[in-house]
Amino acid sequence: MSHIYLKLDVLKVFCEEAFQRFGFTKEEAQIITDVLLLSDKYGIESHGMQRLVRYHKGIKNGVIKVDAKPEIVFETPVSAVIEGHDGMGQLIGVFGMNTAIEKAKKSGMAIVTVRNSNHYGIAGYYARMASDQGLIGMSFTNSEAIMVPTFARKAMLGSNPIAIAVPADPYPFFFDASTTVVTRGKLEMYHKAEKPLHDGWALDENGKPCNDAGRVLKNISAKKGGGIMPLGRNEEYSGSHKGYGYGMISEIFTSILSMGLTSNHTHIDGKGGTCHGFIAIDPACFGDPQEIREHLSVFLQELRDAPKAEGQDRIYTHGEKEHFAVERVQEQGVAVDMKTVIEMMQLANDLQIDFSDFFGDIHPDEKYYASLY
Amino acid sequence: MSHIYLKLDVLKVFCEEAFQRFGFTKEEAQIITDVLLLSDKYGIESHGMQRLVRYHKGIKNGVIKVDAKPEIVFETPVSAVIEGHDGMGQLIGVFGMNTAIEKAKKSGMAIVTVRNSNHYGIAGYYARMASDQGLIGMSFTNSEAIMVPTFARKAMLGSNPIAIAVPADPYPFFFDASTTVVTRGKLEMYHKAEKPLHDGWALDENGKPCNDAGRVLKNISAKKGGGIMPLGRNEEYSGSHKGYGYGMISEIFTSILSMGLTSNHTHIDGKGGTCHGFIAIDPACFGDPQEIREHLSVFLQELRDAPKAEGQDRIYTHGEKEHFAVERVQEQGVAVDMKTVIEMMQLANDLQIDFSDFFGDIHPDEKYYASLY
Repeated sequence: MSHIYLKLDVLKVFCEEAFQRFGFTKEEAQIITDVLLLSDKYGIESHGMQRLVRYHKGIKNGVIKVDAKPEIVFETPVSAVIEGHDGMGQLIGVFGMNTAIEKAKKSGMAIVTVRNSNHYGIAGYYARMASDQGLIGMSFTNSEAIMVPTFARKAMLGSNPIAIAVPADPYPFFFDASTTVVTRGKLEMYHKAEKPLHDGWALDENGKPCNDAGRVLKNISAKKGGGIMPLGRNEEYSGSHKGYGYGMISEIFTSILSMGLTSNHTHIDGKGGTCHGFIAIDPACFGDPQEIREHLSVFLQELRDAPKAEGQDRIYTHGEKEHFAVERVQEQGVAVDMKTVIEMMQLANDLQIDFSDFFGDIHPDEKYYASLY
Repeated sequence: MSHIYLKLDVLKVFCEEAFQRFGFTKEEAQIITDVLLLSDKYGIESHGMQRLVRYHKGIKNGVIKVDAKPEIVFETPVSAVIEGHDGMGQLIGVFGMNTAIEKAKKSGMAIVTVRNSNHYGIAGYYARMASDQGLIGMSFTNSEAIMVPTFARKAMLGSNPIAIAVPADPYPFFFDASTTVVTRGKLEMYHKAEKPLHDGWALDENGKPCNDAGRVLKNISAKKGGGIMPLGRNEEYSGSHKGYGYGMISEIFTSILSMGLTSNHTHIDGKGGTCHGFIAIDPACFGDPQEIREHLSVFLQELRDAPKAEGQDRIYTHGEKEHFAVERVQEQGVAVDMKTVIEMMQLANDLQIDFSDFFGDIHPDEKYYASLY
């Protein structure tokens, strides 16, 4: 697979233009673009601007409603339930986390739960919104069912990520991960690269281990059974019930508390129905925020300094890889595979945007470009 | 390994008597016993009355202070920090969760964090305290370092369980699991049974995979390196960084927010220093608690009814196994292995309790008793 590098600032302007042509206001387009590009900056391409075309499709087929505005339908000083009215996930997500942050600043902490939204990008974006303001942020979402519970053969839970960001130096503690062993995006990468899946990742339509990415992906889309294993694989001795349990925690803070659709009922009959959850906690509830921040920073440094396993030269703390990815991407640009570039050109054409105005002349011929794989 | 079955009500009276002889008041002894016996009822013997002798040792060598009273050193309407003064973990834990529940009933939700405590039994006990009153309960604890972070060769985090209980019918959603792939107790069971450990469980002192339970346990106690892998094993492709991340979440709600000892600094030089975290959330913050409860109950039933993997005849929801374990234990008693029975006899002798008054004549000879393994 070949990639080219597109400059961040150009991509930003292009995405904002595209989202405005989809029908969003300039401010909305900026918010959506900011969420998508943080994913690209972190090197998580499956959740970044690669999704442009998918969002466009979602809007054209009515799953995502451009004019919908998120609405608070129930609230207390420490909580809110938001009805998304099938709007754009990123807009609902930012509104949701802002609601949680505002309440946490007044009340100390808050939990906001959201129903009837759509794909909101990386969960971590919203956790970072809180940590950028000195709060602890958590974010959850359910999704189309892809996780097969322990001993089942049908996907019943989504990728159901749990993200948390906590202020620390020199960079925040930032953990954002699906509760499945890997994401659907990872299976797609292996499929494109024609590589067999690792053992312990996926199940076929009978609930048996399967290394064929194409088969698993086709089954998920057709809802024919099978899917991705929870973190901890598909047996109890390896902790399958634990990954399944973390997936349930995500489901509780999203679909259960909001009375929304559980993952197994989302993405059916032209309805997204995705649910989110947001938590913001002011560390001042527990003492001096600066002391707590330093206490965490010391522990993170102790982890990085701990003795390494034979053959390893580095221990990461969560958020470190993302921190360095941002530096790299700001310097060299976002790696975009040629398939996506071609999709972007077609999209630009559809939207009557002159692609070369933004990116110059790009020849979508794989042989011109260095392979990243 | 041979076991005998001891009746629950007799065990209860025996434990209460023993804890009173340790120096606790009758009420304190009842609380501690209740925590321990729930573990036995759930079939988690490593955290139940088997620990009697270890707690006794902890008291004799001054790690656990019988007279210490938990003290709230900082609080807001939604939070508290509790100083445990090195007291008995179960007493501090019950005080901590009661504080969270009380605040949640007034304010909607609350987080309580605890420092300078000791081993508090199963995390799930405290989560259930909240769900028994119609609230969502969560409980966390750190512990002696046993988890080796991804790419390290030294244990830096504890077993760091996360427990959550949410009201549902016919039984609550109840998830209580270490963030390590397995617990130290499981390694001890394999060691006693002279069975090799599963691949993906443990690391030797060089950070290399190791199937020898005895070696790993000895290394943990001597702090020589090695230990148990996070959920997701020791490589990123299998999700090691995710288990390590969940361990960090537990650390944040326990040692970080309370300004207590992180796992790697606990249990050194005659000091426990264990930290806990408790969260209580009133579902009424999000609408009608009964509707939310029904919504969750429907989803749990859908999970149980989902198509099974080939070769499997049952899908469990979390808390179901524990529910049925209680019924079984109430009927047949608690299975106690002969080594523990002998320890109990010695303890009774030390405390000048007549063991046979409680349990009749037991002959600690393995050949008399049926093997559970």
